[in-house]
Amino acid sequence: MLTVIKIGGNVIDDSGVLEAFLCDFNKVEGPKILVHGGGKLATQFGLQLGIQPQYVHGRRKTDKQTLDLVTMVYGGLINKNIVAALQAKGYNAIGLTGADAGTVKAVKRPVVDVDYGFVGDVPESGVDINILASLLDLGLVPVVAPLTFDGSGGLLNTNADTVAQEVAKAMAEIMDVQLIYCFEKNGVLKNADDESSVIQLIKVTGFNALIDDGVISGGMIPKLENACNAVICGVKRVAIGNAAYINDILSGKSGTVIL
Amino acid sequence: MLTVIKIGGNVIDDSGVLEAFLCDFNKVEGPKILVHGGGKLATQFGLQLGIQPQYVHGRRKTDKQTLDLVTMVYGGLINKNIVAALQAKGYNAIGLTGADAGTVKAVKRPVVDVDYGFVGDVPESGVDINILASLLDLGLVPVVAPLTFDGSGGLLNTNADTVAQEVAKAMAEIMDVQLIYCFEKNGVLKNADDESSVIQLIKVTGFNALIDDGVISGGMIPKLENACNAVICGVKRVAIGNAAYINDILSGKSGTVIL
Repeated sequence: MLTVIKIGGNVIDDSGVLEAFLCDFNKVEGPKILVHGGGKLATQFGLQLGIQPQYVHGRRKTDKQTLDLVTMVYGGLINKNIVAALQAKGYNAIGLTGADAGTVKAVKRPVVDVDYGFVGDVPESGVDINILASLLDLGLVPVVAPLTFDGSGGLLNTNADTVAQEVAKAMAEIMDVQLIYCFEKNGVLKNADDESSVIQLIKVTGFNALIDDGVISGGMIPKLENACNAVICGVKRVAIGNAAYINDILSGKSGTVIL
Repeated sequence: MLTVIKIGGNVIDDSGVLEAFLCDFNKVEGPKILVHGGGKLATQFGLQLGIQPQYVHGRRKTDKQTLDLVTMVYGGLINKNIVAALQAKGYNAIGLTGADAGTVKAVKRPVVDVDYGFVGDVPESGVDINILASLLDLGLVPVVAPLTFDGSGGLLNTNADTVAQEVAKAMAEIMDVQLIYCFEKNGVLKNADDESSVIQLIKVTGFNALIDDGVISGGMIPKLENACNAVICGVKRVAIGNAAYINDILSGKSGTVIL
């Protein structure tokens, strides 16, 4: 079974948490793909370079300067440091953006009411499953930055959750896949302030009821929509949990499973 | 025959020259590996980030801040933009640092009189020829940034000429290889101010005499030492010429050939 793991910005921002996560990577058996988010580094470097974060309706806009910035920080600094760390631990990691080997193509989000700039949405068949399968066959561990390819020479900024979901869904066409979202919480919580209130199982069929009941709200809604979508599209198992307990998430002892 | 092409900073600094070079890339038949240098972008971003270039005996020192900077600029911005541009032209390019797939390992230069910081020298067998051959077999075009892997989780800054030479030499063990250095001049010039004074052929056996006669001097000496070394180590053909005439360099109508 292929395991696609996504780690978020909070894991990347804390070098201790990241190192602990990478040390636990050997618990992940079989072929694996790691997708990483961005974290605060891009904002920090951006401010030093005089690039102010721009938001439209609460979502970050990616102008050309910001695209260059995230290409440097996500595609360069973060991606290569994770690759080097995994290599040192004996994994033959290879860093990729969606442009590399044409792995993840996206379409620049059309301007309707809002121009998000260089932001890409992954269309159906945007993921090249054959080349990813070939890289896995070589024993490589793809480490994927949240940057996609626009098909005509440019990169696009794409949400890392989305990249992970699209890669998992696409690979599910040719092999069994599980998708693990690692973040700073122990799973989907009934009570956001209580880390022990993890909902152990969410069924896709019961997802809307949980939103209606107010159990799932805010930023968890798009994350879980992604997760449900992956399940519907053939991913065998989706789990969400704390990066610190990857071992327990894999064995089902920790985190939330979406079925 | 595998063609290893190195493009220098001056090609990268001029987007028109780079674009023209990449357009001519289809003239390069067979499998190919592109190695790129750094250019002025790293210095520009560095100054914006308050990182002053440090030199020791005229050579740039790579402290931790500078290593992060070049990881962002060489491994991120430059590498990914070249990959995206090649993808748009139909080449299945894949960007690599030496850490990616463990392609190029190096040893941190020991401190003798001078501490160059995070600078790496590539030892014998530092290049993983099997994985590079596997990537070429997949139809991929590796685009290699001048960053190497220290074997224990870190990256090192390595001269792009050296990376190109080491890759070419190593690959020559398993296939016929030619190595092309592209820079801003038409070749090795008898008279540095006269672009028509190209020395068409330099024999390795005659190299020292050319230095003694003062025909080759300055920065051309290490470049040609690299080239001669590649020839001695089994690279079939080494040529040096202008990135604008890659087609003519390949056919022998332009540039300097080292045999």
